[in-house]
Amino acid sequence: MILVLKPGAPKEQLDELLGRIRSMGLDVHISVGVDTTIVGLVGDTTKVDRLVFSSYDIVLNVLKVTEPFKKANRMFHPDDTVIEVGGRKIGEGHFVIIAGPCSVENEEQIVSIAKELKKIGASFLRGGAYKPRTSPYSFQGLGLEGLDLLKAARAETGLPIVSEIMSTDVLDRFVEDVDIIQVGARNMQNFVLLRELGRTNKPVLLKRGLSATLEEWLMSAEYILNEGNEKVILCERGIRTFETYTRNTLDLSAVPAIKKLSHLPVIVDPSHGTGKSWMVGTMAKAALVAGSDGVIIEVHNNPKCALSDGDQSITPSDYSSIFPKIKKLAEIEEKQLEV
Amino acid sequence: MILVLKPGAPKEQLDELLGRIRSMGLDVHISVGVDTTIVGLVGDTTKVDRLVFSSYDIVLNVLKVTEPFKKANRMFHPDDTVIEVGGRKIGEGHFVIIAGPCSVENEEQIVSIAKELKKIGASFLRGGAYKPRTSPYSFQGLGLEGLDLLKAARAETGLPIVSEIMSTDVLDRFVEDVDIIQVGARNMQNFVLLRELGRTNKPVLLKRGLSATLEEWLMSAEYILNEGNEKVILCERGIRTFETYTRNTLDLSAVPAIKKLSHLPVIVDPSHGTGKSWMVGTMAKAALVAGSDGVIIEVHNNPKCALSDGDQSITPSDYSSIFPKIKKLAEIEEKQLEV
Amino acid sequence: MILVLKPGAPKEQLDELLGRIRSMGLDVHISVGVDTTIVGLVGDTTKVDRLVFSSYDIVLNVLKVTEPFKKANRMFHPDDTVIEVGGRKIGEGHFVIIAGPCSVENEEQIVSIAKELKKIGASFLRGGAYKPRTSPYSFQGLGLEGLDLLKAARAETGLPIVSEIMSTDVLDRFVEDVDIIQVGARNMQNFVLLRELGRTNKPVLLKRGLSATLEEWLMSAEYILNEGNEKVILCERGIRTFETYTRNTLDLSAVPAIKKLSHLPVIVDPSHGTGKSWMVGTMAKAALVAGSDGVIIEVHNNPKCALSDGDQSITPSDYSSIFPKIKKLAEIEEKQLEV
Amino acid sequence: MILVLKPGAPKEQLDELLGRIRSMGLDVHISVGVDTTIVGLVGDTTKVDRLVFSSYDIVLNVLKVTEPFKKANRMFHPDDTVIEVGGRKIGEGHFVIIAGPCSVENEEQIVSIAKELKKIGASFLRGGAYKPRTSPYSFQGLGLEGLDLLKAARAETGLPIVSEIMSTDVLDRFVEDVDIIQVGARNMQNFVLLRELGRTNKPVLLKRGLSATLEEWLMSAEYILNEGNEKVILCERGIRTFETYTRNTLDLSAVPAIKKLSHLPVIVDPSHGTGKSWMVGTMAKAALVAGSDGVIIEVHNNPKCALSDGDQSITPSDYSSIFPKIKKLAEIEEKQLEV
Repeated sequence: MILVLKPGAPKEQLDELLGRIRSMGLDVHISVGVDTTIVGLVGDTTKVDRLVFSSYDIVLNVLKVTEPFKKANRMFHPDDTVIEVGGRKIGEGHFVIIAGPCSVENEEQIVSIAKELKKIGASFLRGGAYKPRTSPYSFQGLGLEGLDLLKAARAETGLPIVSEIMSTDVLDRFVEDVDIIQVGARNMQNFVLLRELGRTNKPVLLKRGLSATLEEWLMSAEYILNEGNEKVILCERGIRTFETYTRNTLDLSAVPAIKKLSHLPVIVDPSHGTGKSWMVGTMAKAALVAGSDGVIIEVHNNPKCALSDGDQSITPSDYSSIFPKIKKLAEIEEKQLEV
Repeated sequence: MILVLKPGAPKEQLDELLGRIRSMGLDVHISVGVDTTIVGLVGDTTKVDRLVFSSYDIVLNVLKVTEPFKKANRMFHPDDTVIEVGGRKIGEGHFVIIAGPCSVENEEQIVSIAKELKKIGASFLRGGAYKPRTSPYSFQGLGLEGLDLLKAARAETGLPIVSEIMSTDVLDRFVEDVDIIQVGARNMQNFVLLRELGRTNKPVLLKRGLSATLEEWLMSAEYILNEGNEKVILCERGIRTFETYTRNTLDLSAVPAIKKLSHLPVIVDPSHGTGKSWMVGTMAKAALVAGSDGVIIEVHNNPKCALSDGDQSITPSDYSSIFPKIKKLAEIEEKQLEV
Repeated sequence: MILVLKPGAPKEQLDELLGRIRSMGLDVHISVGVDTTIVGLVGDTTKVDRLVFSSYDIVLNVLKVTEPFKKANRMFHPDDTVIEVGGRKIGEGHFVIIAGPCSVENEEQIVSIAKELKKIGASFLRGGAYKPRTSPYSFQGLGLEGLDLLKAARAETGLPIVSEIMSTDVLDRFVEDVDIIQVGARNMQNFVLLRELGRTNKPVLLKRGLSATLEEWLMSAEYILNEGNEKVILCERGIRTFETYTRNTLDLSAVPAIKKLSHLPVIVDPSHGTGKSWMVGTMAKAALVAGSDGVIIEVHNNPKCALSDGDQSITPSDYSSIFPKIKKLAEIEEKQLEV
Repeated sequence: MILVLKPGAPKEQLDELLGRIRSMGLDVHISVGVDTTIVGLVGDTTKVDRLVFSSYDIVLNVLKVTEPFKKANRMFHPDDTVIEVGGRKIGEGHFVIIAGPCSVENEEQIVSIAKELKKIGASFLRGGAYKPRTSPYSFQGLGLEGLDLLKAARAETGLPIVSEIMSTDVLDRFVEDVDIIQVGARNMQNFVLLRELGRTNKPVLLKRGLSATLEEWLMSAEYILNEGNEKVILCERGIRTFETYTRNTLDLSAVPAIKKLSHLPVIVDPSHGTGKSWMVGTMAKAALVAGSDGVIIEVHNNPKCALSDGDQSITPSDYSSIFPKIKKLAEIEEKQLEV
């Protein structure tokens, strides 16, 4: 951490500041320039809140030198993390496709979609049992019954299942029932939930918040990692910008960025990322080429009747025409397709 | 709800669509234009998901006619909601000041700040017992002990207390201990938490999410109202934009907007909204003039040593110079200052 | 255009409104619902400003039915526009690579880069003679001398040239000297410049503004098209969002969106779009797969000494390793590489 | 400027970097920490492009120490700039109201509005002769004829006039005819225009761009100042965010921020800033209290028939009820109202 001081900072105020820094067990390097004086803090500044220094009158600016995430940081863990779930590998060199409906609606629906996906080729089955909906008047999911139906679909097809958790009170059931627990964008900074997930041994699919910076996203991963759970998969799903033609703005440059900053796997959600079913295939392909370790795609047997997000769901028939294109690109990019 | 159809929509597809609409118990009005055909849905469309229709090939666009929030909607509740807490009125014609430190740190700290605030003039004491922090390595609050210290400060000064809840497992204690339960920006769409709060009778201070539209914010209020709790106070606290000079961009136009759209009280947080202590007084005054029903301000006896958010906290001495200016403006604007 | 009226609109106000609409030569369709009344405007509403109606008290909302762009609209021009420049085709089925330094610095620099690009494979040479710089103290480009140097490089290699115009006073020289005139993001709504370019017969590369919606971008293209120049090439170059890790957020979903909305070619600038040289190759590949008709890439023989944008420039050596990957993907995607 | 180096930077690369820095006439201070090495650049770094250093492999991060704007910087010009135009003072301690229609439509319109404004109380008359419109099909203004009509209104009322320029080819007429030349948001980075304005002696009202940071805005002012024209008035007019209820998000915190960073006057445009006529009065009052040196307000005698921006224009009658409130607040805030 570096403090930039105002020109002509009085000596007694400078001494007070330096005393404060040293009381934190840190050393200081001072460099006096023409207009400004620079104070470098030497030592472990991980737990030092930069805001503490901004409140000093003589401090003009506080500059961050190192990234605040440690366990998620590639600098300290140069090798890629590869997570194995139900025989599928997630991470460098592999490519997974997680597919399925936004919401689990009934047994016939989820089992039939799962069978179609299995036949075409997919790594995991996704399905929402608990649905975070903007409106209290919208369908909120089947809850625990939804998990039972997902298990039935898994039993039928062998596809491991991914489902979203919304609160800690059903955590035990999620740990028991699903293969990957998803944390939605709206809960990316639900720190209580993250901490509890960090105390399990389940892989966690952590979606990026609507307005989360890459750093905040990695700090949320850090909450999970810091409790001991190293199985975190990041998921870019579009950020909120001024553009309203697409539901969100899919930030594909986040993929190479995360790969540079962190050793964790990162996948992409082109369904929520665009909100338009006709873009899903194209953006899934672009995600693969951008270096992502997988995609998560909404597939519904009847999007027109879907209880949620019909607009962005594709049909199994659409999926069967997208799949071979992804397969071909995976070959070109030398990724092992995990189906 | 209005559907705009593509030019030359085939009759059988149109009939399928109309059948679907009628099966929802709605009537249709059709208007055939030069380039497009317009289908108006007549009846209660509150629970109709617009995305359902977007997935029809012949539908070019789905236009919303009415606001999706009902209980929060001024159209259906023209009179302002005024909430009384501990003898203070929150809502039209009144102005409250909620002040105190970001985090409760120890008894001496919170009691002394409370006493100073009481002496200068304040409506409520705020203090964080549970702190949502971006980093797992930052101070996370004293937890339930923090609530005990807040109660001690209330006992000493008579100031009702406001504190932030982060998860439902401590809801009972919050209902028992605090006077207003705050929901932070990061939990604005923690729907499980909102629903549980809706089942209590406690006033809820609902902060706007970092990237929440006015409509989403009101829909989150609707979650609480819909469960029976009518005591919702909205709080604008800055939104995330491209500008980084201020911590957030304080959206003061949200105040008149909410007043137009809803009957609920709305207050402003200039501390988080700007992240700069030297802006707090100025923006608090501007908030009052913009029509807000109150402000929530961070005050710390030693911002330089604050365990969180020192940068945006003002001292009691700063507060004592801001207070008379707010008082004067409240008179000019004919607002009853609730201190 | 559709007007949603407030419940219980008084008859005389309604009549005034209807009179106004009819005075514009438009017909009306009225549909009376439970809560609201809907007024549909029938006829050519292209030149009707929706804001005119918002100012009527009884109008709750004004809904747009058709897109405001006409000449750029695929609905009225279903076939893709393909533009031929110096023997290279730009548009559906073809893929161009425009490469070169951000700024033209001297003859040796631009000619040597051009030669290297020609040897590796490139469609066009780009180079800035006029540079829009945030700071008046930064290098502003060589001006007309820069155009002369670009012409020398073209003469040497046969690569047609692309350069950015900043004002109309040098338009004649640009028309004479360059093959494609670029309009930068900051000038996307410099309507005087757009109109003048529309009166020439030169291909125009129109970059998307930092915070321009797709619709505004197409409306800017409309300014050029409306004057008679049909040779407009759109260029996505990243939009401004809250994320600061990348210089901008490259919006690749804009590519399929533009392809749906318009018949104009669209290319992508991964250099400005990310601001990071190590991302350029990856995002150029992703752009191709997302359906773009080309890319524009900054290449400098010595990025460390570049007078502008060194951070996002790649070396000819980097380019030579990216080029075969783009070539391979172009084959897979069945695009004719125009080199 | 400070460079943060990667851990273990090889000596020869470090020497190359240091040589480069010294070749720019700068000194270096090196501070070796546990994880990183910090290199401070000492000397005048105004003209050093930070991007140059980012392209070095061993450089992890480039941190800015001082603001890039000099002539606009309060640090070097502590006293407020006060600009006098036609007997009205703009700047600290004074408050101006610029009012009038978005577009000049005809003589009767502009003269009658000017008279009404003069009677109620206003500092300047505004009116658009050249209008930057998103659509080429919208009314583009009367051009030079509009300037003539504004002069007629000035002759009739004595109100000095403010009008927007869109290109340099009419600069001479603007210098001759108007009292303050306005640069619109879309032209904030039209550097050719800014430079030409800097060579005149006319006061320039420089609106903030839709997505311009405070720093970029001040750098645009710097373009004008750097050519010798010191009469720059900044104008906050709303920024583009994800929120669409208001036309833009009025950033009132920009007012105290600019006052801190710069000595230039700053005014606020609540009409464009909100896009809603019923918010204009409220936000104008809030702007005054936030410390602005004035407001610019759209007033039209018949907003329903305005050729542009009817939605955000207020009537003279609205204005006459807002004016006394502003007057009262100006007294409270000890600002001299310049009418």
